[in-house]
Amino acid sequence: MPLMFHRMVIAGVGLIGGSLALAARKCKLVEEIIGFGRKEKNLHLAQRRGIIDRYFVNEDDIPRGTDLLILATPVQATVPLAISFLPRLGPGCLISDVGSVKGEIVQEMEKLLPAQISFVGAHPIAGSEQWGAKAAIPDLFFRCRCILTPTRKTDPRSVKKLGSFWRRLGARVEIMDPNLHDRILALVSHLPHVLAYALVNTLGRVDVDFVDLKDYCGGGFKDLTRIASSRPEIWRDICLVNRHAVSKSILEYMRCLEQLRKSIHGGEGDLLEKEFNRANELRRAIP
Amino acid sequence: MPLMFHRMVIAGVGLIGGSLALAARKCKLVEEIIGFGRKEKNLHLAQRRGIIDRYFVNEDDIPRGTDLLILATPVQATVPLAISFLPRLGPGCLISDVGSVKGEIVQEMEKLLPAQISFVGAHPIAGSEQWGAKAAIPDLFFRCRCILTPTRKTDPRSVKKLGSFWRRLGARVEIMDPNLHDRILALVSHLPHVLAYALVNTLGRVDVDFVDLKDYCGGGFKDLTRIASSRPEIWRDICLVNRHAVSKSILEYMRCLEQLRKSIHGGEGDLLEKEFNRANELRRAIP
Repeated sequence: MPLMFHRMVIAGVGLIGGSLALAARKCKLVEEIIGFGRKEKNLHLAQRRGIIDRYFVNEDDIPRGTDLLILATPVQATVPLAISFLPRLGPGCLISDVGSVKGEIVQEMEKLLPAQISFVGAHPIAGSEQWGAKAAIPDLFFRCRCILTPTRKTDPRSVKKLGSFWRRLGARVEIMDPNLHDRILALVSHLPHVLAYALVNTLGRVDVDFVDLKDYCGGGFKDLTRIASSRPEIWRDICLVNRHAVSKSILEYMRCLEQLRKSIHGGEGDLLEKEFNRANELRRAIP
Repeated sequence: MPLMFHRMVIAGVGLIGGSLALAARKCKLVEEIIGFGRKEKNLHLAQRRGIIDRYFVNEDDIPRGTDLLILATPVQATVPLAISFLPRLGPGCLISDVGSVKGEIVQEMEKLLPAQISFVGAHPIAGSEQWGAKAAIPDLFFRCRCILTPTRKTDPRSVKKLGSFWRRLGARVEIMDPNLHDRILALVSHLPHVLAYALVNTLGRVDVDFVDLKDYCGGGFKDLTRIASSRPEIWRDICLVNRHAVSKSILEYMRCLEQLRKSIHGGEGDLLEKEFNRANELRRAIP
């Protein structure tokens, strides 16, 4: 199988960016991988682990001949970073990202792009609560779903090329409207993260006779709040950039929760069991 | 090590009751184990798996000489079942339970008990979303916390004996006031279950352009909702018997969630990051 890109720059060599570098190298899709970031310690570690060949820390130093630029920072940094890199990118360069929010970013990127540089939004649905280059693994995207979010303005050849790239990494590629993507992800991913953070904070805020409640958290509590260990900066950005859909999802959730609370408070056993049964069946149907 | 009981009756041979039988047998603490329940198919399976030696399905058939009766049904059945068994229990019999709610049950049991029969409330904090005798395993309680909830009326020798029993099964025994137990468990266990059911039901209730949202649920959603696969009947009972503490915990949770939602909706990044960081640190401190 031939190389797909000569010089890949990964801006943000964390769990996702670092894993993408490892996977691209393992599958021999790129010749050289160069890291960019703010934290030299993390970049140094990435280089030592063989994730990247070298790195730079000033936007101006992006190497000539970069033909694939992956923006893998927290999502609020995606567009500003692209703006800094753009003047030094040559014609034919493909820019993509890996962020959990697409609508606003795709729209802003399309406003910025010169004629011979293309942007295709991408979101590989994979991850864990780990972060940093230390957490990167080559198989993170194997069999994961990767959603590409082109619009009518996106260069079709670039969409095709990026689709092949992700497919060759083992991902199942799907094309979706960026705003639809954001509404779906608000419900299935962003909402659960906010719920987990809120549950941990409830534990921190409530006092029950000075008992250290942490000692009594069992498997259920721990499962529910595992994702509250995720990097706060990442999730702050996602929630803010996708604020309307996330806020709406939280309101929808609160309606369901308040209905359950009323059944509990009012001692309505049949109604409660019906709602629990409904959830039970739906949960078992999730692949 | 000597036997502790001759004839143990387990009412409700499910995940908890069945695992307790397996553990008591493995540790050679009881001579004979007899199951009781409504579902003969489950009891038959329990007998075939060697969890119980034999079983009965009418309360009147509880064997003479039962010296340990464990009530391991959904919690709303605990007191009514005890009432049915009491006329046939001999002096010296120790009754206990394994339920997630204690206050109301302990109070009602104390009203019922004749002089020579004692009740000690117990709650081993262990479990999974599995249920039935098929899910029982002998090591479920190894190193788990088991809370005993005696009151000033409880026979101290029975508390001591039940404490030894659980310790010999490998549990870490702790004594706690029944109402304090219920307030703690409402927060760390009952609340998370209600939150999980509500999240699955939100997914079921919302429509996003006719997309099958189930297909997009990643690891975070699945972790958060694993406990929504728990047996609805069990959790209906727990929520109802502990309704005041559970309802209060949900209200406290909704306050935390609404605060996050306001920060998200208002684009208050610093506040949001502070709250996420607070949750992050507290989550990492959970043992």
